Amino acid sequence: MGLQRFGVSMESSLLERFDALVRERGYANRSEAIRDIIRDVLVERQWEDEGTEVAGTITLVYDHHVNGLSDLLNDLQHEHYRSILSTMHIHLDEHNCLEVLVVKGRAGELRRIAERLIATRGVKHGKLTLTSTGKDLR
Amino acid sequence: MGLQRFGVSMESSLLERFDALVRERGYANRSEAIRDIIRDVLVERQWEDEGTEVAGTITLVYDHHVNGLSDLLNDLQHEHYRSILSTMHIHLDEHNCLEVLVVKGRAGELRRIAERLIATRGVKHGKLTLTSTGKDLR
Amino acid sequence: MGLQRFGVSMESSLLERFDALVRERGYANRSEAIRDIIRDVLVERQWEDEGTEVAGTITLVYDHHVNGLSDLLNDLQHEHYRSILSTMHIHLDEHNCLEVLVVKGRAGELRRIAERLIATRGVKHGKLTLTSTGKDLR
Amino acid sequence: MGLQRFGVSMESSLLERFDALVRERGYANRSEAIRDIIRDVLVERQWEDEGTEVAGTITLVYDHHVNGLSDLLNDLQHEHYRSILSTMHIHLDEHNCLEVLVVKGRAGELRRIAERLIATRGVKHGKLTLTSTGKDLR
Repeated sequence: MGLQRFGVSMESSLLERFDALVRERGYANRSEAIRDIIRDVLVERQWEDEGTEVAGTITLVYDHHVNGLSDLLNDLQHEHYRSILSTMHIHLDEHNCLEVLVVKGRAGELRRIAERLIATRGVKHGKLTLTSTGKDLR
Repeated sequence: MGLQRFGVSMESSLLERFDALVRERGYANRSEAIRDIIRDVLVERQWEDEGTEVAGTITLVYDHHVNGLSDLLNDLQHEHYRSILSTMHIHLDEHNCLEVLVVKGRAGELRRIAERLIATRGVKHGKLTLTSTGKDLR
Repeated sequence: MGLQRFGVSMESSLLERFDALVRERGYANRSEAIRDIIRDVLVERQWEDEGTEVAGTITLVYDHHVNGLSDLLNDLQHEHYRSILSTMHIHLDEHNCLEVLVVKGRAGELRRIAERLIATRGVKHGKLTLTSTGKDLR
Repeated sequence: MGLQRFGVSMESSLLERFDALVRERGYANRSEAIRDIIRDVLVERQWEDEGTEVAGTITLVYDHHVNGLSDLLNDLQHEHYRSILSTMHIHLDEHNCLEVLVVKGRAGELRRIAERLIATRGVKHGKLTLTSTGKDLR
């Protein structure tokens, strides 16, 4: 698995802003930053194919005082317990819960689970974060 | 505003998959694709107000066999232990780790923590997902 | 913080079983095993004093189909959100939940939280695991 | 069944606290206390049936500054990734980590994993807590 090298051309103004980003994020050089950014795009692309095996997280913020909401979210999660590996719950304050679900499975299925949970009445905010099982990333 | 040219090095396997993406999306060449992707990253980065108190997650995928990587990531996290509420680690397989950090604090600070972790050599993929502490959402 | 050395006497039969334990657990020698076991007793002793700051976990197994149970457990946990740092939920199967709460605070308070959660109707099994904040253990 | 005598080395700070315990509990000497504590450990170890499928947690407290320790613990956990469902890490302070592993499998196997992790040099305190998968509990 050798390294290959190729040239990239870029407007000075864009390059300047890119270099600032490379410095701020603490990358050793431009190549390292570009590789990371490309991997990110490739991960998102894996998710475009419904059937690819991927991993990700679903983040939910809700108020546990909404009657029956914890019950409902817990029931929904158990319906899909094979795709939801683990859930971490942070008690942000007296009212607000932050729940993070780690999910693994086919992209299409995970998207549907996320949408159903996020659409649940009482969930204030929800997000699906796409990542990968790591197998195809070097 | 002249064009500048610089070299990028990349593992063959990653370059191959990148080239497939360049073709699929109809870019004229690699430079054009890279410029577009970098612009995207710069745009995404601007939306948050540095000072707002937010909650969120940082998701990392890495291979724990990279020597010293677990140590380094753990040390970095402890430096910011006041902003990182809890970390969940999923042992995806013999090689791959998925780590989700639940973070809370000022948006700017969280972004810096995330960028530093994601830029760490050996981390295959990382993402910062910002959500809210729930206080301003009804 | 120097090392000190002292002699211990023990019946051959007990020593034999202890040596088997040392081997099985992979300790380098008897001293290392004895130090670990003594630390364990010291941790339990910290918990005897109501006012000492300690850490621990509360493990709960329950069936989420019991009506209102998830709601109730979530409400109870939020009442004590300052002592409960984070909760991990594993969806064991369609019915059974395993929940692990990481708690930190005064021993007496943590005991009361654990007892209340474990005594909740519908919780099949619960356990308080005593550990320490690590500050007094060398 | 003769008495045997062997030497034990211990940090002064730990020995001091152990001596306080010996006095408080009214033991005649250190040997008597150590024999009692070892008997306790041997008894606790016997109750489980090696082959039963159980769930549980392994709790570890350690200082992440011990060189290579995070790497080693992460490697060990990945060797047993099929039995370790998820790990939650709490950054207690600049030094101390609290890690909770949720485990599922045969009791004997889980005990061996726990003992290996707990015996790792640098782990200050560890505990295996066994509970049930909920299937046999009504």
